[in-house]
Amino acid sequence: MTLLAFFEADRRAIEETLDRLLPAADTPPASVHQAMRYSVFAGGKRIRPILCLETAQIFGAQAQAALTVGCAIEFIHTYSLIHDDLPALDNDDLRRGRPTCHKAFGEATAILAGDALLTLAFETLAAAPLDAERRVAIIHEVAGAAGTRGGMVGGQVADLEAEGKPIEPTLLEFIHRAKTAALIRAAVVAGALSGGAAEADLERLRRFGEEIGWAFQVVDDILDVEESSAALGKTAGKDIAQKKATYPALYGLERSRAFAQDLLARAIAALEPYGARADNLRALARFLVTRRA
Amino acid sequence: MTLLAFFEADRRAIEETLDRLLPAADTPPASVHQAMRYSVFAGGKRIRPILCLETAQIFGAQAQAALTVGCAIEFIHTYSLIHDDLPALDNDDLRRGRPTCHKAFGEATAILAGDALLTLAFETLAAAPLDAERRVAIIHEVAGAAGTRGGMVGGQVADLEAEGKPIEPTLLEFIHRAKTAALIRAAVVAGALSGGAAEADLERLRRFGEEIGWAFQVVDDILDVEESSAALGKTAGKDIAQKKATYPALYGLERSRAFAQDLLARAIAALEPYGARADNLRALARFLVTRRA
Repeated sequence: MTLLAFFEADRRAIEETLDRLLPAADTPPASVHQAMRYSVFAGGKRIRPILCLETAQIFGAQAQAALTVGCAIEFIHTYSLIHDDLPALDNDDLRRGRPTCHKAFGEATAILAGDALLTLAFETLAAAPLDAERRVAIIHEVAGAAGTRGGMVGGQVADLEAEGKPIEPTLLEFIHRAKTAALIRAAVVAGALSGGAAEADLERLRRFGEEIGWAFQVVDDILDVEESSAALGKTAGKDIAQKKATYPALYGLERSRAFAQDLLARAIAALEPYGARADNLRALARFLVTRRA
Repeated sequence: MTLLAFFEADRRAIEETLDRLLPAADTPPASVHQAMRYSVFAGGKRIRPILCLETAQIFGAQAQAALTVGCAIEFIHTYSLIHDDLPALDNDDLRRGRPTCHKAFGEATAILAGDALLTLAFETLAAAPLDAERRVAIIHEVAGAAGTRGGMVGGQVADLEAEGKPIEPTLLEFIHRAKTAALIRAAVVAGALSGGAAEADLERLRRFGEEIGWAFQVVDDILDVEESSAALGKTAGKDIAQKKATYPALYGLERSRAFAQDLLARAIAALEPYGARADNLRALARFLVTRRA
């Protein structure tokens, strides 16, 4: 069974919520709303909102708040892909086999659509059906994970700064944890906050999110080496060609695979206190690390 | 006396707060933090934080919360300038007489520095020294004013969509209110929320902020026609040359000046209930409308 099939009910609820939260495609000014929708509905696997939702459900919470919060985080993920693909950054023409946002809508609209999704994410979080204390805690967590100090933009900039230089292990770790793990960790912590988790739960789940987020990036780098361009829907092997800082480039495929398994084991261990209530989250963690393109 | 001299004490406190809230220039990854600081400290007049601060002070509030909130809004204003100047948008090489962010740091870093400032704004608001209810109300107000539905990005996109087409009065009004007035209005409303304003005050001050924000954009367009390139520090007359939707282009200079005065009078009228407590805010409103470049 694939990840998509196992979490089909989550995914359906997520797609509906994304659709409800986004302005309609004909709301003026229409071009930016069309671009936002084009990129949000470009076939993403919804890993972050599923993680958010399944984490909240450990605590038996109603799904509505975690759905809203998870979709806001998906807006942030989508904005980062739109800006990453721009000519000045990765200069990618295709994503998941379709033209990237700037190829379809032009660069100006793509830049503004990314800005708009980031902004909409925080507007959405501020209006989530949770008490105000939980909402500000989530906004603070998510903004930190998307920012420059150990967050997503910080990882992207460190990645840019490292291009063409010899890869250094501690810098590689910083880049991966910041660029990818931080927002995945935030999805888990925000899910816990949406579900009403206590302080000790937040610490445990923060650890789970960090390990699984890091593993996710290591597996991404492995797949980039393994898969052909067609199967991956983007220009594969590109990281290697550009001498980007990746695990396989530094340690080879075998050690990279072992490292991903090690991170998975540590992530699963953090879920121990939750017993069967965390079964879905464990399954999701395994899917993320054993996935194929 | 100029605006800068009258509000010198506010400005000093704002500069200090901006400096404290921004990551140090040598915090890794350094390039993005340098770019953020370069653009934030590029000589802005700090109109939005001054408005925020002076509105809060109508209610006799301690300045600290409003300073933090006003500086977060200044981050959003600065991000919008960085992205606006990019080659795909206005393609400006100079702003206030200095190279624009992408000219100084490259396009990739400029895009990410803008993203980072927008993100930092919400991280800052989430941690402002106010109760959680007020913080989420401010975040919701500010995100709405920066977004696509009547907010800043919506105004920018509508402006792009209108380029080269005949200027239509209701569209021009939408563009100005969204592109400029919305964030200025949010600075006023956020100041009122920081100061502890009641619901009726919020409505009145929202009106004040909307009128003065709209007047500000009309005056900007008038100055663009009047001033030479050297005095303005950017390529003047450019709006006209590009057939952008502006008041002078649609109504001529004389009617545009009368309209700005009319908006100013309406804004001042909204402050009536506050008597002498709003004297600074009235002075600020007059400065904004009678300013010269």
